[in-house]
Amino acid sequence: MAGLTGIAYGADYNPEQWDPSVWRKDVELMRHAGVTLLSVGIFSWSMLEPRDSEYQFGWLDEVLGLLADAGIAVNLANATATPPPWLSAAHPEILPMLADGSRLWPGARQAFCPSSPVFRNHALRLTEAIATRYAGHPALAMWHVSNEIGGHNARCYCDVSAVAFRKWLRDRYDSIGVLNAAWGTTFWGQVYSEWDEILPPRQAASYGNPTHALDFYQFSSDECVAEYVAERDVLRKITPNIPVTTNIMPGHATFDYWSWAPELDVVAIDHYLTAARRDAHIGLSMAADTARGLAGGSPWMLMEQSTSAVNWQARNVAKQPGEMMRNSLQHVARGADSVMFFQWRSSQFGAEKYHSAMVPHAGTDTKIWREVVELGDVLGRLEEVAGTTVTADVALLFDWRSGWALDAPSHPSVDVRYADQVDAMYTALWRCGVTVDLVSPRTELSGYRLLVVPSLYIIDRDLSRRIAEFIATGGNAVVTFMSGIVDERLHLYPGPYPGALRDCLGIAVEEFFPLRAGEQVALDNGYRSSVWSELMHLDGATAVASFVDGPVVGTPAITCHRAGEGRSWYIATRLEQESLDRLIKGIVRELKIKPPIPMAAVPSGVEAVRRSGNGRSFLFLINHGDETAHIVAHGNELICDRRLAGLLALRPGACAVVAEEAS
Amino acid sequence: MAGLTGIAYGADYNPEQWDPSVWRKDVELMRHAGVTLLSVGIFSWSMLEPRDSEYQFGWLDEVLGLLADAGIAVNLANATATPPPWLSAAHPEILPMLADGSRLWPGARQAFCPSSPVFRNHALRLTEAIATRYAGHPALAMWHVSNEIGGHNARCYCDVSAVAFRKWLRDRYDSIGVLNAAWGTTFWGQVYSEWDEILPPRQAASYGNPTHALDFYQFSSDECVAEYVAERDVLRKITPNIPVTTNIMPGHATFDYWSWAPELDVVAIDHYLTAARRDAHIGLSMAADTARGLAGGSPWMLMEQSTSAVNWQARNVAKQPGEMMRNSLQHVARGADSVMFFQWRSSQFGAEKYHSAMVPHAGTDTKIWREVVELGDVLGRLEEVAGTTVTADVALLFDWRSGWALDAPSHPSVDVRYADQVDAMYTALWRCGVTVDLVSPRTELSGYRLLVVPSLYIIDRDLSRRIAEFIATGGNAVVTFMSGIVDERLHLYPGPYPGALRDCLGIAVEEFFPLRAGEQVALDNGYRSSVWSELMHLDGATAVASFVDGPVVGTPAITCHRAGEGRSWYIATRLEQESLDRLIKGIVRELKIKPPIPMAAVPSGVEAVRRSGNGRSFLFLINHGDETAHIVAHGNELICDRRLAGLLALRPGACAVVAEEAS
Amino acid sequence: MAGLTGIAYGADYNPEQWDPSVWRKDVELMRHAGVTLLSVGIFSWSMLEPRDSEYQFGWLDEVLGLLADAGIAVNLANATATPPPWLSAAHPEILPMLADGSRLWPGARQAFCPSSPVFRNHALRLTEAIATRYAGHPALAMWHVSNEIGGHNARCYCDVSAVAFRKWLRDRYDSIGVLNAAWGTTFWGQVYSEWDEILPPRQAASYGNPTHALDFYQFSSDECVAEYVAERDVLRKITPNIPVTTNIMPGHATFDYWSWAPELDVVAIDHYLTAARRDAHIGLSMAADTARGLAGGSPWMLMEQSTSAVNWQARNVAKQPGEMMRNSLQHVARGADSVMFFQWRSSQFGAEKYHSAMVPHAGTDTKIWREVVELGDVLGRLEEVAGTTVTADVALLFDWRSGWALDAPSHPSVDVRYADQVDAMYTALWRCGVTVDLVSPRTELSGYRLLVVPSLYIIDRDLSRRIAEFIATGGNAVVTFMSGIVDERLHLYPGPYPGALRDCLGIAVEEFFPLRAGEQVALDNGYRSSVWSELMHLDGATAVASFVDGPVVGTPAITCHRAGEGRSWYIATRLEQESLDRLIKGIVRELKIKPPIPMAAVPSGVEAVRRSGNGRSFLFLINHGDETAHIVAHGNELICDRRLAGLLALRPGACAVVAEEAS
Repeated sequence: MAGLTGIAYGADYNPEQWDPSVWRKDVELMRHAGVTLLSVGIFSWSMLEPRDSEYQFGWLDEVLGLLADAGIAVNLANATATPPPWLSAAHPEILPMLADGSRLWPGARQAFCPSSPVFRNHALRLTEAIATRYAGHPALAMWHVSNEIGGHNARCYCDVSAVAFRKWLRDRYDSIGVLNAAWGTTFWGQVYSEWDEILPPRQAASYGNPTHALDFYQFSSDECVAEYVAERDVLRKITPNIPVTTNIMPGHATFDYWSWAPELDVVAIDHYLTAARRDAHIGLSMAADTARGLAGGSPWMLMEQSTSAVNWQARNVAKQPGEMMRNSLQHVARGADSVMFFQWRSSQFGAEKYHSAMVPHAGTDTKIWREVVELGDVLGRLEEVAGTTVTADVALLFDWRSGWALDAPSHPSVDVRYADQVDAMYTALWRCGVTVDLVSPRTELSGYRLLVVPSLYIIDRDLSRRIAEFIATGGNAVVTFMSGIVDERLHLYPGPYPGALRDCLGIAVEEFFPLRAGEQVALDNGYRSSVWSELMHLDGATAVASFVDGPVVGTPAITCHRAGEGRSWYIATRLEQESLDRLIKGIVRELKIKPPIPMAAVPSGVEAVRRSGNGRSFLFLINHGDETAHIVAHGNELICDRRLAGLLALRPGACAVVAEEAS
Repeated sequence: MAGLTGIAYGADYNPEQWDPSVWRKDVELMRHAGVTLLSVGIFSWSMLEPRDSEYQFGWLDEVLGLLADAGIAVNLANATATPPPWLSAAHPEILPMLADGSRLWPGARQAFCPSSPVFRNHALRLTEAIATRYAGHPALAMWHVSNEIGGHNARCYCDVSAVAFRKWLRDRYDSIGVLNAAWGTTFWGQVYSEWDEILPPRQAASYGNPTHALDFYQFSSDECVAEYVAERDVLRKITPNIPVTTNIMPGHATFDYWSWAPELDVVAIDHYLTAARRDAHIGLSMAADTARGLAGGSPWMLMEQSTSAVNWQARNVAKQPGEMMRNSLQHVARGADSVMFFQWRSSQFGAEKYHSAMVPHAGTDTKIWREVVELGDVLGRLEEVAGTTVTADVALLFDWRSGWALDAPSHPSVDVRYADQVDAMYTALWRCGVTVDLVSPRTELSGYRLLVVPSLYIIDRDLSRRIAEFIATGGNAVVTFMSGIVDERLHLYPGPYPGALRDCLGIAVEEFFPLRAGEQVALDNGYRSSVWSELMHLDGATAVASFVDGPVVGTPAITCHRAGEGRSWYIATRLEQESLDRLIKGIVRELKIKPPIPMAAVPSGVEAVRRSGNGRSFLFLINHGDETAHIVAHGNELICDRRLAGLLALRPGACAVVAEEAS
Repeated sequence: MAGLTGIAYGADYNPEQWDPSVWRKDVELMRHAGVTLLSVGIFSWSMLEPRDSEYQFGWLDEVLGLLADAGIAVNLANATATPPPWLSAAHPEILPMLADGSRLWPGARQAFCPSSPVFRNHALRLTEAIATRYAGHPALAMWHVSNEIGGHNARCYCDVSAVAFRKWLRDRYDSIGVLNAAWGTTFWGQVYSEWDEILPPRQAASYGNPTHALDFYQFSSDECVAEYVAERDVLRKITPNIPVTTNIMPGHATFDYWSWAPELDVVAIDHYLTAARRDAHIGLSMAADTARGLAGGSPWMLMEQSTSAVNWQARNVAKQPGEMMRNSLQHVARGADSVMFFQWRSSQFGAEKYHSAMVPHAGTDTKIWREVVELGDVLGRLEEVAGTTVTADVALLFDWRSGWALDAPSHPSVDVRYADQVDAMYTALWRCGVTVDLVSPRTELSGYRLLVVPSLYIIDRDLSRRIAEFIATGGNAVVTFMSGIVDERLHLYPGPYPGALRDCLGIAVEEFFPLRAGEQVALDNGYRSSVWSELMHLDGATAVASFVDGPVVGTPAITCHRAGEGRSWYIATRLEQESLDRLIKGIVRELKIKPPIPMAAVPSGVEAVRRSGNGRSFLFLINHGDETAHIVAHGNELICDRRLAGLLALRPGACAVVAEEAS
């Protein structure tokens, strides 16, 4: 980022919510806390352009001037996140439409159809006005396009979207005949004769065509990318040297971020804990690893997290003392070069006034403010970490598109949820302590020792071939059920399941046997499972464990196959987490994959990740558990500025960052 | 069926989903499996008429030619099940409207308003074109009109439906005044002054008028019948000797099938297990008995079932080995002269690709295919069974209209569900082993020994009189609460409940006392019950059991009344299934009603039904339980082609069909 | 009420549902039961004006004549409760619109937008016609405007409502700038530039602006009041001496009844038990106390209750013998001068035919009818009670607006529900036996000994000051969490929570710590709680109890503060009911607040309330428990007409009314 060094620290800053008298106090507090970067103006459109073509930049000039004077860099928004009321009042046709035909009206945010040319034109005009005005401003470090694009309005079913969808389809399919073949419209008599007959997959009388839906979801994702790209390109033209990004949400299942990430100058994510979960920190790790995957291994930005509770979950559990520090260092450990929050100061009004911030309602004599100051101090000590990277021996093959398709209605069991399968597998790997890359179906696999493939429903012929090659040349794979069942058009591969992986797994699945609600089955190695079973035949593989009850009693549940130089495991049921943990731990041990520190020696809940580069190596150690961990480490511990030469005692809740030396 | 002998065997065949190279292979496999009948072309409209008035029959000519050559008969669809995209694109006014005013768009199937004249005209034109082309085709055995008519679109609330509804009402009511009286519009000030003021019962501010809703549901059912009749009449005119039918769904609560069945040349049903239920085979028996009731005792067709799992339930539990055979023989035992499936070959794409078929994805080296071939073989041995019939001493009085009315909002308890009451009673009778006819409110009752009346909410004065007569002349009845409460206009009978049956039951119910959620009460004979209680006085009847706790402690819960030559029992609460089983078993024993075999001698789960006619008698024996049953039978066992002279050992899961001889 | 003495007794009477032959029988039964007042014609619009401007008054003339002859007074409806079908058929634009843009169609009741001028004009015209015709009629005692106004249609989101809403906003806010400041529209970029940009808070993409919603809810409530006022004013002009009212529903959270009540000549409520709750009688007491609060302490009318079950709850539990008598006397004890029912005679048709009535379906040889006659007799003995009043030492500060705001989305925890907090506090006080006034934020507090403030989320600066003064001058207060958090614009008070009460409670809350679903925590005095905790600092107060586990272990959970002459308690968690009961009992005892009878001496479940005035004093005693209570009382027991001089034995379920003499 232009003019920034070290780990950037800051927040969204919404000065328009406050009297200018507060701004000066804000700057003072920011300096005290060590803030270096602020995202400014995200929701300011109606303030900057209160009427069509009437601009009011004065207040923003003043704010940016104050920040420049204080040496605080600005990640300046182009302010298109929410159009002003005058725009939708004049053009109600820009309002998004749900699948049932009802509209989303203004009153919250993002009340526009992503395909609307009226919205696009106004947004680009505003972007140009802002970029022109602030090009060369001393505070300007980067551009923040819109905000959480498509978070609420990605899938719009209106007639304007229908036109755009047809255009998108014509670009993808040579002819209506090719589309009919891809969608399988001969099923239920849906054959189209003209492009204009095609609509978004609106509310229908029964189950819609799955490929129609998949294409619409990809179109919707692509339209959001197009919104970003159009606004970015205006900014690039005016300030070619200023990096441009937008804050994406890897946990948000609506987007194909693999196709979005390459358009970002730097990958920037928002992450919020699923706060009521006791293991929310594992989900955080996965989000961070996803961000790193999207960034292709380069450092990335944590653009938003919360200092404590948010306001939009059912029960907004607040953070315990030290938890914000651990969360922040988890992100840095896994490649983040910034730690930023929504938002600087808690709002006094509006829909998110109960969202925590760096300056809480109760002021500076608070747990939150003290921890904010402490975190600024710690990040200051980690300056050298910036720019270093993380490497992993294990890759988790992940694809949002498989989730869209697998979680759709009219599939074998409502209990099979893509996110559940991925989370379970990631959790098992996290508990082993190994570092995992989240990789896309197009990522080069050859560098990895182990590839895990949890319920990757869609596997096209190219990926099928590459996975087989990966294993044949010495790679290892763990695959769970409902992987490789369909191709990119959602057509089933002919023959026994899973068509795309059958050969390299050495199995043939004859029929699915989903389990009843709550039904549990047992395996002959003592594992337990639920949700799923299937009738499988061995075709080269050997059975690792078999079902001892349930609908396919006596048949294999877990298999292992030696294919060429590598090995592949297949799991034909939804193992209980503890059973999956045991299985994965065994495989990792067998493959001699090494975590950053020996996990056998530390109590559960310790997280260890290594960032390295430029000849330096930094070991991050975070103790989420409730026992003190004793860890061998050599070097300088940066948080407490102490020299380690041997055993580090890491108390429950504590963190350490060791600038390592050879022991 | 024209040109068919024995039990027809086959499936829906959708060749348009496959390359013509597959068709020849299909025919070969069909012959191997003993297929004799196929339903062809059901969803072919958009293939046969890809643009308005442009027909493409070539592919269908070829398919029918192949089948004719192979000697496989065709149940040819008129292909109107789903209109092609070009029709709704040109005429969006044909799209169905939900009660909230939103539309159902195309993308699935059946996206049309049943009252739409635009749809009707196009459908009749297509029907005529198909009938004209294939009249006299050697493969043509019968006509299959549309498909599961009204399955998703029966109740349309659009303005076109409103016009049709008013016409229907004018035919039913002499004047608006008669309508006002029937609907009781003086309640809540709903008196109509003109027909044009009447709308479908759309989303309203509070509870709608119940009689308005009942009439709309009957209208909606009748419009679906009218759709069938209009298409049938085109076919009849062109091919007067070819029988016409459509596949109805007795488990689908949306239709008054008693008024529909007489329009069918042969009753044909679709039946799918509620697969996650362990006792799904009992529901199957009830569906089959309903089909026989609709057919007036004549043989009927099983037009669709599944070889294993379906795709549209929450957890699509697959069939266990042997289960498909048992299911199929249950249908045949209860009067089916065909066993057919959806569909011949599992789809590779579309919304139902996970629906099992005769040829599964995994091919012919599979449990499913082996059982398909075995079933074809078994059905071949049952040729003589075709045309025989089933008789029963027990009738279950059933009416879809009572369900519509009783399950509506603003009734005494949401826990009183018509289907639940009927299922519980049917289950108790099934476990006794007695054969039951499902009969309509207009069926002649005199031939039965026992009439069961579970929660038949609507009983008009004619039925009230006929039930009284039935009992007075020696019949016996078991009636459960909420039977005979209202007349056909849903007006309460004056005086104590149940007005239509009070006299013949010898009771007077003063007030309903619904139970709380989960509340259980006990009876003084050890029975337990829930959901319902009521304050009853004996008026001739005697108490069989009384409540020992709950809101009406000490008052009668079950009564028995001798009225004329017969007896009537009344059950004033929702007995737990085990208690109901005991009660019904006792009554059946007391009335000396005989099941086809002595049930006391066999373990639970054995099903026995007898078909007879033409001087022959066939005893079907199916063991759903997990113990071997030893059954006395004399004659030729057709499945294994063995002679029985005494005890047959029927293993768990096994079936037998005995061509009986006098012992 | 004009021409009425004693406690009025009667019901809604809907003669239009019955043949005139029934009317004469009705009058006879009414006289037998002691009926003195009937609400007539509530849903008669479509009968009285069957076509636009065509009136038919004959039938009503006849009914009113019969009642006048029988000496039964009439509370005559202006019949505007539901417009006739011809009106919405001619003017579909009057139909209400939901937030999602869908309409509510006719078919039930109240299918009109409260802001519709078309509806208003027709309603006023009808009101004038009725008032003109029946002014001076000997039966006319009072006017009943509409019915349960806004019960189903209060919040209409249509364009007509939008226009009215903007007018309402312009009256409230000087300029669009003031509105922007009040709503905090700088959050999420919602700044309005013109009034016409403002819409009702329709379905939006995310959380709407909370102040926008609050204003819309107040507008909607005010529009319903305006409907009432407009119709009332027509009546007042024509019959200035006849009191006018409408039946309001204090338990219905949609209205700000504090602003409505002053428009009523006499406060009249409808009350229905939440019948499946075992403690439904406590909710009844609270509703009655609310009615008395709305009436400013004057007697009020119970306009509707049920004799037994209703039809619109999930499981319509019927009343036990004696329950209706207890319910009725609870209302009278707490200030009701009438006991009336919906309705006189159970309907034979329509949506509420299962709603109990004074004359049940089963006729007069019934529990209900016998109790109706008995109740008429008892009320006759209570003539002197009419006009007396109830006084209380304890006030519960209650405001519907706080419920609207607190229960909205995007707040800290979905488990914090305003009604739950109020009910819990009222229940604890009820169990202490003390009489409680429900008071508004504008009620003068100085007369009370104890003020309880359960989760009163909105406290404006004026109320904040008055509560502080109340305590400073010797009053005592018990406040629970989430009270006084925001001002009347829903802006947070700056600094630690709760800004409006921090000083007088002597505490400072730093951060909220909502608990997880189902999570329980313990306090060091043995209490248990759930839902909520918070991180609090003592600032003058002392800790009464502290958390021993949970997220803020070791910090105060209950505090007490001495501020000036009075004391204030604060409860920072949702105590389990039993713990709250103990806490409140201790505080009441400590403050020496006396219930009407010493509660320590009677078993639980006994309710005692005193009405007095005109030098007389009446002690109402109702035993809801299952043990006989022995109560010291001196005077004449009116129900059984017996003299008491010492101990009264009150059996389970029994009631007594003692005209007291000094002991």
